[in-house]
Amino acid sequence: MNVFLVYAHPEPRSLNGSLRDFAIQRLEHAGHAVQVSDLYAMQWKAVLDAEDNTARQPDARFDPSLDSRQAFENGTQSADIVREQEKLRWADAVILQFPLWWFSMPAILKGWIDRVYAYGFAYGVGEHSDTHWGDRYGEGTLADKRAMLVVTTGGWASHYGPRGINGPIDDILFPIQHGILFYSGFDVLPPHVIYRTSRIDEAGFPKVCEALGQRLDSLWTTAPIPFRQQNAGDYLIPELTLKPEHAPGQSGLSIHIVEK
Amino acid sequence: MNVFLVYAHPEPRSLNGSLRDFAIQRLEHAGHAVQVSDLYAMQWKAVLDAEDNTARQPDARFDPSLDSRQAFENGTQSADIVREQEKLRWADAVILQFPLWWFSMPAILKGWIDRVYAYGFAYGVGEHSDTHWGDRYGEGTLADKRAMLVVTTGGWASHYGPRGINGPIDDILFPIQHGILFYSGFDVLPPHVIYRTSRIDEAGFPKVCEALGQRLDSLWTTAPIPFRQQNAGDYLIPELTLKPEHAPGQSGLSIHIVEK
Repeated sequence: MNVFLVYAHPEPRSLNGSLRDFAIQRLEHAGHAVQVSDLYAMQWKAVLDAEDNTARQPDARFDPSLDSRQAFENGTQSADIVREQEKLRWADAVILQFPLWWFSMPAILKGWIDRVYAYGFAYGVGEHSDTHWGDRYGEGTLADKRAMLVVTTGGWASHYGPRGINGPIDDILFPIQHGILFYSGFDVLPPHVIYRTSRIDEAGFPKVCEALGQRLDSLWTTAPIPFRQQNAGDYLIPELTLKPEHAPGQSGLSIHIVEK
Repeated sequence: MNVFLVYAHPEPRSLNGSLRDFAIQRLEHAGHAVQVSDLYAMQWKAVLDAEDNTARQPDARFDPSLDSRQAFENGTQSADIVREQEKLRWADAVILQFPLWWFSMPAILKGWIDRVYAYGFAYGVGEHSDTHWGDRYGEGTLADKRAMLVVTTGGWASHYGPRGINGPIDDILFPIQHGILFYSGFDVLPPHVIYRTSRIDEAGFPKVCEALGQRLDSLWTTAPIPFRQQNAGDYLIPELTLKPEHAPGQSGLSIHIVEK
Protein backbone atom coordinates (compact mmCIF):
# COMPACT_ATOMS: atom_id res chain seq x y z
CA MET A 1 0.00 0.00 0.00
CA ASN A 2 0.98 3.62 -0.43
CA VAL A 3 1.50 5.73 2.67
CA PHE A 4 1.92 9.51 2.59
CA LEU A 5 3.44 11.04 5.71
CA VAL A 6 3.04 14.77 6.15
CA TYR A 7 5.45 15.86 8.82
CA ALA A 8 5.73 19.24 10.52
CA HIS A 9 8.54 19.73 13.03
CA PRO A 10 11.38 22.22 12.70
CA GLU A 11 14.15 20.04 14.19
CA PRO A 12 15.17 16.65 12.72
CA ARG A 13 17.09 15.87 15.94
CA SER A 14 13.89 15.84 17.99
CA LEU A 15 11.55 13.20 19.32
CA ASN A 16 9.33 13.92 16.35
CA GLY A 17 12.25 13.52 13.96
CA SER A 18 13.17 10.17 15.48
CA LEU A 19 9.58 8.97 15.34
CA ARG A 20 9.29 10.01 11.72
CA ASP A 21 12.41 7.98 10.86
CA PHE A 22 11.08 5.03 12.81
CA ALA A 23 7.71 5.23 11.06
CA ILE A 24 9.21 5.31 7.59
CA GLN A 25 11.39 2.31 8.37
CA ARG A 26 8.57 0.33 9.92
CA LEU A 27 6.25 0.98 6.99
CA GLU A 28 8.88 0.19 4.36
CA HIS A 29 9.88 -3.01 6.15
CA ALA A 30 6.24 -4.05 5.98
CA GLY A 31 6.39 -3.63 2.21
CA HIS A 32 4.60 -0.32 1.85
CA ALA A 33 5.68 2.52 -0.40
CA VAL A 34 6.21 5.71 1.57
CA GLN A 35 6.32 9.33 0.47
CA VAL A 36 7.14 12.04 2.97
CA SER A 37 6.44 15.75 2.86
CA ASP A 38 8.76 17.23 5.47
CA LEU A 39 7.24 20.69 5.49
CA TYR A 40 10.06 22.50 7.28
CA ALA A 41 12.73 20.82 5.16
CA MET A 42 10.75 21.71 2.01
CA GLN A 43 10.40 25.31 3.23
CA TRP A 44 6.73 24.91 2.51
CA LYS A 45 5.00 28.23 1.80
CA ALA A 46 2.55 28.43 4.68
CA VAL A 47 0.51 31.42 3.64
CA LEU A 48 -2.35 31.13 1.17
CA ASP A 49 -2.38 34.18 -1.09
CA ALA A 50 -3.07 35.43 -4.60
CA GLU A 51 0.17 33.95 -5.93
CA ASP A 52 -1.28 30.47 -5.53
CA ASN A 53 -3.10 30.97 -8.84
CA THR A 54 -0.35 31.44 -11.40
CA ALA A 55 -2.72 32.87 -14.01
CA ARG A 56 -4.51 35.57 -12.09
CA GLN A 57 -4.73 39.20 -13.14
CA PRO A 58 -2.38 41.23 -10.98
CA ASP A 59 -4.94 43.87 -10.01
CA ALA A 60 -7.96 41.65 -9.68
CA ARG A 61 -9.67 41.43 -6.33
CA PHE A 62 -8.48 38.23 -4.67
CA ASP A 63 -11.16 35.83 -3.48
CA PRO A 64 -9.53 32.86 -1.74
CA SER A 65 -12.32 30.48 -2.65
CA LEU A 66 -13.06 31.62 -6.22
CA ASP A 67 -9.41 31.96 -7.11
CA SER A 68 -8.75 28.48 -5.78
CA ARG A 69 -11.61 27.14 -7.89
CA GLN A 70 -10.42 28.84 -11.06
CA ALA A 71 -6.84 27.73 -10.57
CA PHE A 72 -7.90 24.16 -9.91
CA GLU A 73 -10.27 24.01 -12.89
CA ASN A 74 -7.90 25.72 -15.30
CA GLY A 75 -4.77 23.89 -14.24
CA THR A 76 -3.06 27.07 -13.07
CA GLN A 77 -2.43 26.13 -9.47
CA SER A 78 1.02 26.77 -8.07
CA ALA A 79 3.23 23.72 -8.76
CA ASP A 80 3.90 23.02 -5.08
CA ILE A 81 0.17 22.66 -4.47
CA VAL A 82 -0.28 20.29 -7.41
CA ARG A 83 2.55 18.06 -6.20
CA GLU A 84 0.92 17.64 -2.79
CA GLN A 85 -2.49 16.91 -4.33
CA GLU A 86 -0.82 14.20 -6.45
CA LYS A 87 0.68 12.62 -3.36
CA LEU A 88 -2.75 12.64 -1.72
CA ARG A 89 -4.29 10.93 -4.76
CA TRP A 90 -1.47 8.37 -4.80
CA ALA A 91 -1.86 7.49 -1.13
CA ASP A 92 -3.92 4.70 0.36
CA ALA A 93 -3.25 6.12 3.81
CA VAL A 94 -2.17 9.58 4.97
CA ILE A 95 -0.51 10.30 8.28
CA LEU A 96 -0.24 13.83 9.62
CA GLN A 97 2.52 13.98 12.24
CA PHE A 98 3.00 17.12 14.31
CA PRO A 99 3.55 18.52 17.79
CA LEU A 100 0.35 19.98 19.24
CA TRP A 101 0.99 23.72 19.40
CA TRP A 102 -1.76 25.70 21.07
CA PHE A 103 -4.19 22.82 20.72
CA SER A 104 -3.84 22.66 16.96
CA MET A 105 -1.34 22.15 14.15
CA PRO A 106 1.80 24.23 13.67
CA ALA A 107 1.12 27.07 11.23
CA ILE A 108 3.18 25.45 8.48
CA LEU A 109 0.86 22.43 8.48
CA LYS A 110 -2.27 24.57 8.70
CA GLY A 111 -0.95 26.40 5.66
CA TRP A 112 -0.46 23.09 3.87
CA ILE A 113 -4.15 22.39 4.45
CA ASP A 114 -5.22 25.94 3.53
CA ARG A 115 -3.37 25.74 0.20
CA VAL A 116 -3.53 22.07 -0.84
CA TYR A 117 -7.19 21.65 0.11
CA ALA A 118 -8.34 23.57 -2.95
CA TYR A 119 -11.85 24.30 -4.16
CA GLY A 120 -12.76 21.44 -6.48
CA PHE A 121 -10.26 19.18 -4.78
CA ALA A 122 -11.20 19.04 -1.11
CA TYR A 123 -14.31 21.24 -1.02
CA GLY A 124 -16.84 22.48 -3.54
CA VAL A 125 -17.02 18.90 -4.85
CA GLY A 126 -20.23 17.19 -5.99
CA GLU A 127 -23.79 18.29 -6.65
CA HIS A 128 -26.20 20.04 -4.33
CA SER A 129 -29.79 18.81 -4.26
CA ASP A 130 -32.58 18.12 -1.79
CA THR A 131 -30.84 14.93 -0.68
CA HIS A 132 -27.19 15.64 -1.32
CA TRP A 133 -25.24 18.66 -0.08
CA GLY A 134 -22.01 18.23 -1.99
CA ASP A 135 -19.55 15.36 -1.67
CA ARG A 136 -18.31 16.02 1.84
CA TYR A 137 -18.23 14.48 5.29
CA GLY A 138 -17.56 10.91 4.24
CA GLU A 139 -17.55 11.44 0.49
CA GLY A 140 -15.23 13.33 -1.82
CA THR A 141 -11.90 13.22 -3.59
CA LEU A 142 -10.16 11.46 -0.74
CA ALA A 143 -12.81 8.80 -0.05
CA ASP A 144 -11.67 5.20 0.42
CA LYS A 145 -8.39 6.38 1.87
CA ARG A 146 -7.40 6.23 5.51
CA ALA A 147 -5.98 9.03 7.61
CA MET A 148 -4.43 9.13 11.05
CA LEU A 149 -2.94 11.84 13.24
CA VAL A 150 0.30 11.22 15.12
CA VAL A 151 0.53 13.97 17.71
CA THR A 152 2.99 14.79 20.47
CA THR A 153 2.25 17.03 23.42
CA GLY A 154 3.98 18.12 26.60
CA GLY A 155 0.75 17.84 28.58
CA TRP A 156 -0.34 14.83 30.58
CA ALA A 157 -2.93 12.34 29.35
CA SER A 158 -5.22 13.29 32.24
CA HIS A 159 -5.18 16.93 31.14
CA TYR A 160 -6.71 15.72 27.87
CA GLY A 161 -9.02 13.15 29.43
CA PRO A 162 -12.81 13.19 29.51
CA ARG A 163 -12.79 15.75 32.34
CA GLY A 164 -9.31 17.20 31.80
CA ILE A 165 -8.86 20.96 31.71
CA ASN A 166 -7.61 21.09 28.12
CA GLY A 167 -10.71 19.34 26.88
CA PRO A 168 -10.91 15.72 25.75
CA ILE A 169 -8.30 15.08 23.07
CA ASP A 170 -10.97 13.82 20.64
CA ASP A 171 -12.86 17.11 21.00
CA ILE A 172 -9.71 19.21 20.62
CA LEU A 173 -8.85 17.30 17.45
CA PHE A 174 -12.42 17.33 16.09
CA PRO A 175 -11.85 20.36 13.83
CA ILE A 176 -8.97 18.45 12.20
CA GLN A 177 -10.27 14.89 12.24
CA HIS A 178 -13.88 15.68 11.32
CA GLY A 179 -13.63 19.16 9.78
CA ILE A 180 -10.60 18.52 7.57
CA LEU A 181 -10.04 14.78 7.15
CA PHE A 182 -13.54 13.28 7.25
CA TYR A 183 -14.88 16.31 5.38
CA SER A 184 -12.73 15.52 2.37
CA GLY A 185 -13.65 11.83 2.40
CA PHE A 186 -11.07 10.07 4.55
CA ASP A 187 -11.82 7.24 6.90
CA VAL A 188 -10.24 8.67 10.03
CA LEU A 189 -8.53 6.32 12.47
CA PRO A 190 -8.32 7.14 16.17
CA PRO A 191 -5.35 9.45 16.73
CA HIS A 192 -2.06 8.26 18.12
CA VAL A 193 -1.19 10.77 20.83
CA ILE A 194 2.09 10.76 22.72
CA TYR A 195 1.77 12.69 25.99
CA ARG A 196 4.27 14.29 28.35
CA THR A 197 7.06 14.23 25.83
CA SER A 198 9.62 15.88 28.11
CA ARG A 199 9.65 12.70 30.21
CA ILE A 200 10.63 10.44 27.34
CA ASP A 201 14.31 9.58 27.71
CA GLU A 202 16.54 7.16 25.85
CA ALA A 203 15.36 4.28 27.99
CA GLY A 204 11.72 5.06 27.29
CA PHE A 205 12.09 5.69 23.57
CA PRO A 206 11.82 2.04 22.40
CA LYS A 207 8.48 1.72 24.17
CA VAL A 208 7.20 4.86 22.46
CA CYS A 209 8.33 3.45 19.12
CA GLU A 210 6.71 0.13 19.74
CA ALA A 211 3.38 1.73 20.54
CA LEU A 212 3.56 3.73 17.30
CA GLY A 213 4.73 0.65 15.42
CA GLN A 214 1.64 -1.26 16.44
CA ARG A 215 -0.56 1.54 15.13
CA LEU A 216 1.34 1.46 11.83
CA ASP A 217 1.07 -2.32 11.61
CA SER A 218 -2.70 -2.10 12.04
CA LEU A 219 -3.23 0.86 9.72
CA TRP A 220 -5.41 -1.28 7.43
CA THR A 221 -7.33 -3.15 10.11
CA THR A 222 -8.07 -0.53 12.77
CA ALA A 223 -11.71 0.53 12.75
CA PRO A 224 -12.16 4.18 11.74
CA ILE A 225 -13.98 6.64 13.99
CA PRO A 226 -17.62 6.09 12.97
CA PHE A 227 -18.41 9.69 12.03
CA ARG A 228 -21.86 10.03 10.48
CA GLN A 229 -21.91 10.50 6.70
CA GLN A 230 -23.60 13.74 5.72
CA ASN A 231 -25.67 12.40 2.82
CA ALA A 232 -26.63 8.98 4.17
CA GLY A 233 -29.87 10.09 5.79
CA ASP A 234 -28.87 11.12 9.30
CA TYR A 235 -29.02 14.88 8.64
CA LEU A 236 -31.73 17.26 7.49
CA ILE A 237 -30.78 18.96 4.22
CA PRO A 238 -30.04 21.86 3.77
CA GLU A 239 -30.06 22.72 7.50
CA LEU A 240 -27.50 19.96 8.06
CA THR A 241 -28.70 19.36 11.57
CA LEU A 242 -28.81 15.84 12.97
CA LYS A 243 -32.32 14.43 12.69
CA PRO A 244 -34.19 14.37 16.00
CA GLU A 245 -34.31 10.58 16.14
CA HIS A 246 -30.52 10.35 16.41
CA ALA A 247 -28.94 11.14 19.78
CA PRO A 248 -32.32 12.62 20.79
CA GLY A 249 -32.08 15.73 22.93
CA GLN A 250 -28.31 15.76 22.83
CA SER A 251 -25.91 18.26 21.32
CA GLY A 252 -22.18 18.76 21.00
CA LEU A 253 -19.45 17.07 19.04
CA SER A 254 -20.04 13.47 20.06
CA ILE A 255 -23.47 13.26 18.42
CA HIS A 256 -21.71 13.15 15.04
CA ILE A 257 -20.32 9.75 15.89
CA VAL A 258 -22.65 6.76 15.41
CA GLU A 259 -23.67 5.28 18.74
CA LYS A 260 -22.35 1.81 19.42
CA MET B 1 -9.34 52.24 26.27
CA ASN B 2 -6.74 50.56 24.08
CA VAL B 3 -7.93 48.09 21.47
CA PHE B 4 -5.58 45.84 19.51
CA LEU B 5 -7.05 44.34 16.34
CA VAL B 6 -5.20 41.40 14.85
CA TYR B 7 -6.50 40.94 11.33
CA ALA B 8 -5.82 38.08 8.94
CA HIS B 9 -7.32 38.31 5.47
CA PRO B 10 -5.35 38.48 2.21
CA GLU B 11 -7.62 40.93 0.35
CA PRO B 12 -8.37 44.46 1.62
CA ARG B 13 -11.28 44.71 -0.88
CA SER B 14 -13.17 41.92 0.87
CA LEU B 15 -16.00 41.72 3.36
CA ASN B 16 -13.36 41.22 6.04
CA GLY B 17 -11.46 44.27 4.85
CA SER B 18 -14.59 46.41 4.96
CA LEU B 19 -15.49 45.15 8.41
CA ARG B 20 -12.00 45.88 9.66
CA ASP B 21 -12.26 49.47 8.43
CA PHE B 22 -15.69 49.79 9.99
CA ALA B 23 -14.45 48.43 13.31
CA ILE B 24 -11.50 50.80 13.50
CA GLN B 25 -13.74 53.77 12.75
CA ARG B 26 -16.39 52.72 15.26
CA LEU B 27 -13.83 52.21 18.01
CA GLU B 28 -12.00 55.46 17.33
CA HIS B 29 -15.25 57.41 17.19
CA ALA B 30 -16.02 56.03 20.63
CA GLY B 31 -12.75 57.50 21.87
CA HIS B 32 -10.63 54.37 21.99
CA ALA B 33 -7.05 54.11 20.80
CA VAL B 34 -6.69 51.40 18.16
CA GLN B 35 -3.65 49.52 16.93
CA VAL B 36 -3.97 47.07 14.06
CA SER B 37 -1.73 44.21 13.03
CA ASP B 38 -2.75 43.46 9.47
CA LEU B 39 -0.83 40.22 9.14
CA TYR B 40 -0.96 39.89 5.35
CA ALA B 41 -0.05 43.54 4.81
CA MET B 42 2.83 43.16 7.29
CA GLN B 43 3.97 39.99 5.49
CA TRP B 44 4.02 38.39 8.90
CA LYS B 45 6.42 35.43 9.10
CA ALA B 46 4.05 32.58 9.80
CA VAL B 47 6.50 29.81 10.54
CA LEU B 48 8.08 29.40 13.96
CA ASP B 49 11.69 28.33 13.56
CA ALA B 50 15.20 28.62 14.99
CA GLU B 51 15.65 32.14 13.58
CA ASP B 52 13.12 33.44 16.12
CA ASN B 53 15.93 33.47 18.70
CA THR B 54 18.47 35.92 17.34
CA ALA B 55 21.21 34.68 19.67
CA ARG B 56 21.16 30.97 19.12
CA GLN B 57 24.13 28.86 18.14
CA PRO B 58 23.80 27.93 14.47
CA ASP B 59 24.40 24.21 14.97
CA ALA B 60 22.57 23.77 18.25
CA ARG B 61 19.62 21.42 18.33
CA PHE B 62 16.49 23.56 18.12
CA ASP B 63 13.91 23.05 20.84
CA PRO B 64 10.86 25.25 20.13
CA SER B 65 9.95 25.59 23.77
CA LEU B 66 13.43 25.95 25.32
CA ASP B 67 14.64 28.30 22.61
CA SER B 68 11.56 30.44 23.07
CA ARG B 69 12.21 30.57 26.81
CA GLN B 70 15.86 31.54 26.40
CA ALA B 71 15.09 34.19 23.83
CA PHE B 72 12.35 35.68 25.98
CA GLU B 73 14.47 35.67 29.16
CA ASN B 74 17.60 36.99 27.48
CA GLY B 75 15.91 39.62 25.35
CA THR B 76 17.00 37.98 22.12
CA GLN B 77 13.61 37.41 20.55
CA SER B 78 13.14 38.41 16.95
CA ALA B 79 12.06 42.09 16.80
CA ASP B 80 8.74 41.33 15.08
CA ILE B 81 7.76 39.07 17.97
CA VAL B 82 8.67 41.71 20.58
CA ARG B 83 6.58 44.35 18.81
CA GLU B 84 3.48 42.16 18.92
CA GLN B 85 4.01 41.32 22.58
CA GLU B 86 4.23 45.04 23.32
CA LYS B 87 0.92 45.63 21.55
CA LEU B 88 -0.65 42.87 23.61
CA ARG B 89 0.65 44.44 26.83
CA TRP B 90 -0.62 47.85 25.73
CA ALA B 91 -4.10 46.59 24.93
CA ASP B 92 -7.12 46.57 27.21
CA ALA B 93 -8.97 44.50 24.63
CA VAL B 94 -7.77 42.32 21.79
CA ILE B 95 -9.86 41.35 18.78
CA LEU B 96 -8.81 38.56 16.46
CA GLN B 97 -10.59 38.95 13.12
CA PHE B 98 -10.34 36.22 10.51
CA PRO B 99 -12.24 34.07 8.04
CA LEU B 100 -12.79 30.54 9.36
CA TRP B 101 -10.64 28.32 7.14
CA TRP B 102 -11.02 24.63 7.78
CA PHE B 103 -12.65 25.27 11.13
CA SER B 104 -9.69 27.24 12.46
CA MET B 105 -7.56 30.30 11.82
CA PRO B 106 -5.69 31.01 8.59
CA ALA B 107 -2.11 29.77 8.88
CA ILE B 108 -0.72 33.29 9.07
CA LEU B 109 -2.68 33.94 12.25
CA LYS B 110 -1.85 30.55 13.72
CA GLY B 111 1.78 31.43 13.09
CA TRP B 112 1.28 34.73 14.89
CA ILE B 113 0.10 32.76 17.92
CA ASP B 114 2.87 30.15 17.59
CA ARG B 115 5.57 32.85 17.55
CA VAL B 116 4.20 35.68 19.73
CA TYR B 117 2.89 33.36 22.45
CA ALA B 118 6.39 32.74 23.75
CA TYR B 119 7.52 30.69 26.74
CA GLY B 120 7.60 33.09 29.68
CA PHE B 121 5.10 35.36 27.98
CA ALA B 122 2.01 33.26 27.30
CA TYR B 123 3.00 29.91 28.78
CA GLY B 124 5.55 28.68 31.27
CA VAL B 125 4.45 31.54 33.53
CA GLY B 126 4.11 31.29 37.33
CA GLU B 127 4.96 28.71 39.95
CA HIS B 128 3.97 25.07 40.16
CA SER B 129 2.89 23.74 43.56
CA ASP B 130 0.28 21.46 45.09
CA THR B 131 -2.36 24.14 44.65
CA HIS B 132 -1.13 26.12 41.67
CA TRP B 133 -0.17 24.71 38.28
CA GLY B 134 1.36 27.77 36.66
CA ASP B 135 -0.40 31.03 35.84
CA ARG B 136 -2.72 29.78 33.11
CA TYR B 137 -6.39 29.34 32.32
CA GLY B 138 -7.62 32.60 33.80
CA GLU B 139 -4.30 33.88 35.08
CA GLY B 140 -1.14 35.00 33.34
CA THR B 141 0.47 37.86 31.45
CA LEU B 142 -2.73 38.82 29.66
CA ALA B 143 -5.07 38.71 32.67
CA ASP B 144 -7.51 41.60 33.16
CA LYS B 145 -7.69 42.14 29.42
CA ARG B 146 -10.61 41.22 27.22
CA ALA B 147 -10.50 39.25 23.99
CA MET B 148 -13.08 38.59 21.30
CA LEU B 149 -13.10 36.70 18.03
CA VAL B 150 -14.71 38.22 14.94
CA VAL B 151 -15.13 35.35 12.50
CA THR B 152 -16.65 35.06 9.03
CA THR B 153 -17.74 31.81 7.44
CA GLY B 154 -19.50 30.70 4.28
CA GLY B 155 -21.50 28.09 6.18
CA TRP B 156 -24.97 28.60 7.56
CA ALA B 157 -25.67 29.27 11.23
CA SER B 158 -27.61 25.99 11.46
CA HIS B 159 -24.56 24.04 10.28
CA TYR B 160 -22.77 25.38 13.36
CA GLY B 161 -25.74 25.05 15.70
CA PRO B 162 -26.09 22.73 18.70
CA ARG B 163 -26.83 19.78 16.39
CA GLY B 164 -25.24 21.12 13.19
CA ILE B 165 -22.91 18.90 11.21
CA ASN B 166 -19.86 21.15 11.62
CA GLY B 167 -20.15 21.01 15.37
CA PRO B 168 -21.41 23.83 17.59
CA ILE B 169 -19.45 27.00 16.89
CA ASP B 170 -18.46 27.32 20.56
CA ASP B 171 -16.95 23.83 20.48
CA ILE B 172 -15.15 24.47 17.19
CA LEU B 173 -13.68 27.65 18.62
CA PHE B 174 -12.87 26.11 22.03
CA PRO B 175 -9.21 25.42 21.16
CA ILE B 176 -8.82 29.12 20.35
CA GLN B 177 -11.07 30.72 22.96
CA HIS B 178 -10.14 28.44 25.86
CA GLY B 179 -6.83 26.94 24.75
CA ILE B 180 -5.20 30.15 23.51
CA LEU B 181 -7.04 33.17 24.90
CA PHE B 182 -8.30 32.05 28.30
CA TYR B 183 -5.10 30.04 28.80
CA SER B 184 -2.99 33.19 28.65
CA GLY B 185 -5.29 35.09 31.01
CA PHE B 186 -7.84 36.89 28.84
CA ASP B 187 -11.48 37.29 29.74
CA VAL B 188 -13.00 35.88 26.57
CA LEU B 189 -16.22 37.41 25.25
CA PRO B 190 -18.66 35.35 23.21
CA PRO B 191 -17.50 35.31 19.59
CA HIS B 192 -19.06 37.48 16.91
CA VAL B 193 -19.66 35.11 14.02
CA ILE B 194 -20.91 36.24 10.62
CA TYR B 195 -22.41 33.31 8.69
CA ARG B 196 -23.15 32.69 5.02
CA THR B 197 -20.94 35.50 3.85
CA SER B 198 -21.58 34.90 0.14
CA ARG B 199 -25.14 36.13 0.66
CA ILE B 200 -24.12 39.50 2.06
CA ASP B 201 -24.63 42.10 -0.65
CA GLU B 202 -24.40 45.88 -0.61
CA ALA B 203 -27.92 46.15 0.75
CA GLY B 204 -27.18 43.77 3.59
CA PHE B 205 -23.82 45.23 4.52
CA PRO B 206 -25.08 48.03 6.83
CA LYS B 207 -26.95 45.47 8.91
CA VAL B 208 -23.81 43.35 9.25
CA CYS B 209 -21.88 46.44 10.32
CA GLU B 210 -24.49 47.45 12.85
CA ALA B 211 -24.43 44.00 14.48
CA LEU B 212 -20.66 44.20 14.76
CA GLY B 213 -20.90 47.81 15.94
CA GLN B 214 -23.10 46.81 18.84
CA ARG B 215 -20.55 44.20 19.90
CA LEU B 216 -17.81 46.83 19.76
CA ASP B 217 -19.90 49.31 21.74
CA SER B 218 -20.41 46.73 24.46
CA LEU B 219 -16.84 45.44 24.53
CA TRP B 220 -16.45 46.58 28.14
CA THR B 221 -19.85 45.53 29.43
CA THR B 222 -20.49 42.16 27.77
CA ALA B 223 -20.13 39.29 30.23
CA PRO B 224 -17.19 37.00 29.40
CA ILE B 225 -17.65 33.28 28.83
CA PRO B 226 -17.47 31.94 32.41
CA PHE B 227 -14.64 29.46 31.83
CA ARG B 228 -13.47 27.87 35.07
CA GLN B 229 -10.18 29.18 36.46
CA GLN B 230 -7.60 26.45 36.78
CA ASN B 231 -6.25 27.38 40.20
CA ALA B 232 -9.43 28.52 41.92
CA GLY B 233 -10.31 25.14 43.38
CA ASP B 234 -12.44 23.48 40.69
CA TYR B 235 -9.69 21.17 39.42
CA LEU B 236 -7.57 18.47 41.00
CA ILE B 237 -3.87 19.33 40.81
CA PRO B 238 -1.73 18.01 39.14
CA GLU B 239 -4.19 15.79 37.25
CA LEU B 240 -6.09 18.91 36.21
CA THR B 241 -9.35 17.05 35.99
CA LEU B 242 -12.56 18.74 37.06
CA LYS B 243 -13.46 17.72 40.61
CA PRO B 244 -16.29 15.18 40.78
CA GLU B 245 -18.68 17.59 42.49
CA HIS B 246 -18.72 19.88 39.45
CA ALA B 247 -20.82 18.81 36.46
CA PRO B 248 -21.02 15.36 38.09
CA GLY B 249 -20.86 12.45 35.67
CA GLN B 250 -20.46 14.73 32.67
CA SER B 251 -17.57 15.14 30.28
CA GLY B 252 -16.71 17.17 27.20
CA LEU B 253 -15.93 20.81 26.56
CA SER B 254 -18.94 22.41 28.20
CA ILE B 255 -18.03 21.24 31.70
CA HIS B 256 -15.26 23.84 31.72
CA ILE B 257 -17.85 26.59 31.77
CA VAL B 258 -19.43 27.42 35.15
CA GLU B 259 -23.06 26.32 35.24
CA LYS B 260 -25.58 29.14 35.43
